Amino acid sequence: MTKAGKMPRTHSADLGQVDRKALAAAIEECFASTQVSTACADACLREQTIAELVQCVGTSLDSADISDATGRVLLRHTGHNGHLTRATLEACITACKACGDDCEQHTGTEHCRSCGETSRRCERACGELMTSLS
Amino acid sequence: MTKAGKMPRTHSADLGQVDRKALAAAIEECFASTQVSTACADACLREQTIAELVQCVGTSLDSADISDATGRVLLRHTGHNGHLTRATLEACITACKACGDDCEQHTGTEHCRSCGETSRRCERACGELMTSLS
Amino acid sequence: MTKAGKMPRTHSADLGQVDRKALAAAIEECFASTQVSTACADACLREQTIAELVQCVGTSLDSADISDATGRVLLRHTGHNGHLTRATLEACITACKACGDDCEQHTGTEHCRSCGETSRRCERACGELMTSLS
Amino acid sequence: MTKAGKMPRTHSADLGQVDRKALAAAIEECFASTQVSTACADACLREQTIAELVQCVGTSLDSADISDATGRVLLRHTGHNGHLTRATLEACITACKACGDDCEQHTGTEHCRSCGETSRRCERACGELMTSLS
Repeated sequence: MTKAGKMPRTHSADLGQVDRKALAAAIEECFASTQVSTACADACLREQTIAELVQCVGTSLDSADISDATGRVLLRHTGHNGHLTRATLEACITACKACGDDCEQHTGTEHCRSCGETSRRCERACGELMTSLS
Repeated sequence: MTKAGKMPRTHSADLGQVDRKALAAAIEECFASTQVSTACADACLREQTIAELVQCVGTSLDSADISDATGRVLLRHTGHNGHLTRATLEACITACKACGDDCEQHTGTEHCRSCGETSRRCERACGELMTSLS
Repeated sequence: MTKAGKMPRTHSADLGQVDRKALAAAIEECFASTQVSTACADACLREQTIAELVQCVGTSLDSADISDATGRVLLRHTGHNGHLTRATLEACITACKACGDDCEQHTGTEHCRSCGETSRRCERACGELMTSLS
Repeated sequence: MTKAGKMPRTHSADLGQVDRKALAAAIEECFASTQVSTACADACLREQTIAELVQCVGTSLDSADISDATGRVLLRHTGHNGHLTRATLEACITACKACGDDCEQHTGTEHCRSCGETSRRCERACGELMTSLS
């Protein structure tokens, strides 16, 4: 776990009812998803089979952008707007699921296998944070 | 309307049932929201009353990040994953509503009044695109 | 020009020696570049000739990300750190030049022609702002 | 080191003369910088002394955005455009230096001390990658 993942604990007074462990895990996985999806999209572009991977590149880029925004929103989480947190998590879960579904079809390619796994972890961590908010 | 707002029409074959006018309007408003919210957060920081504006800065930064990601996802829209488009629009509507609600409390400040109006336009444009998808 | 492009004028006291017209133009072009490059990368992916366009996709994605960060930094510009403004503009000029160089090789494709033009405008606007800072 | 930091090695053929260890370290530090700077800006906003911290918030937000774009560009690094890599690294070094300089003035605040350290690590890692490119 990075320093960043631990960061939210430093202004603990604002966190209200949030499960801090679930929050830190979701933040960690969002930024891992951004990185791995960005790298996977780039690696797909360099495959000779790129013509078959274009949808995978698109869902990876979507997942990278949404995970990034979600990670930033969660890092700013104050417990005051649960509605925004939930809607953002739902978008991230949906984007990571789409990316995971696409990448899992190319498990013979190392970067897609890795990206599929990372996407599933992010989908799960965001789902667990969502559950803890209810 | 910028060139970017018109861009989606160039690969029209992929757009399926999407209302192209509503799509172009939502993209335009998402990027306007990113810019105006970023500038408003910065301008708030320079107000002597900053201590009263901290929540407004936070919702503006959230709105900037989510609008940016939403604009990028919509620019890549292919009509193949309506589920992702809807979840992303829902997050953007929620973020822009929160930013609009906060900024409208400071209409004596020009940047907050402008940001409140831009947030409402983005909230509305995303809502209209959402309706057109149903 | 959007509301966002006009935004910097609202906290004019901070802008020091900056040429406000050049600043507003650079901000406008940075966000146009982000949008058009994002859309161009996606449109390239849908071309039958994608195998020949992979480098163009890569430089477009780089340009989109750097233009976005540059636009955000310029929107926060306060005149206090000219060194950061210059280094950021230099990165943006370089990224837009690379994107323009690649896209101009595919002027038979409408989105590449449009993206090439937008990249050149951003490169030029950032260059003019840089000159005005010296 | 995360999976993402290791990712570039999977398409090693493209990396040319790049020092892969320095590249992986710079990517890792760029994304750590994005996270810690985003969290630090938010935590500053919640300090009672926010009026004294506004410049620190601004440089943290700049650093977060530039580090994010730099990390994405480096993840796409192919060795084909050293000029872009260098200009981007230079912007990131400058942004992290500014953020480190500001945060180091508030070492009594835990999040600023942590953000100062992370910014220095990112500045150093980008500098080492830059040196290895020359």
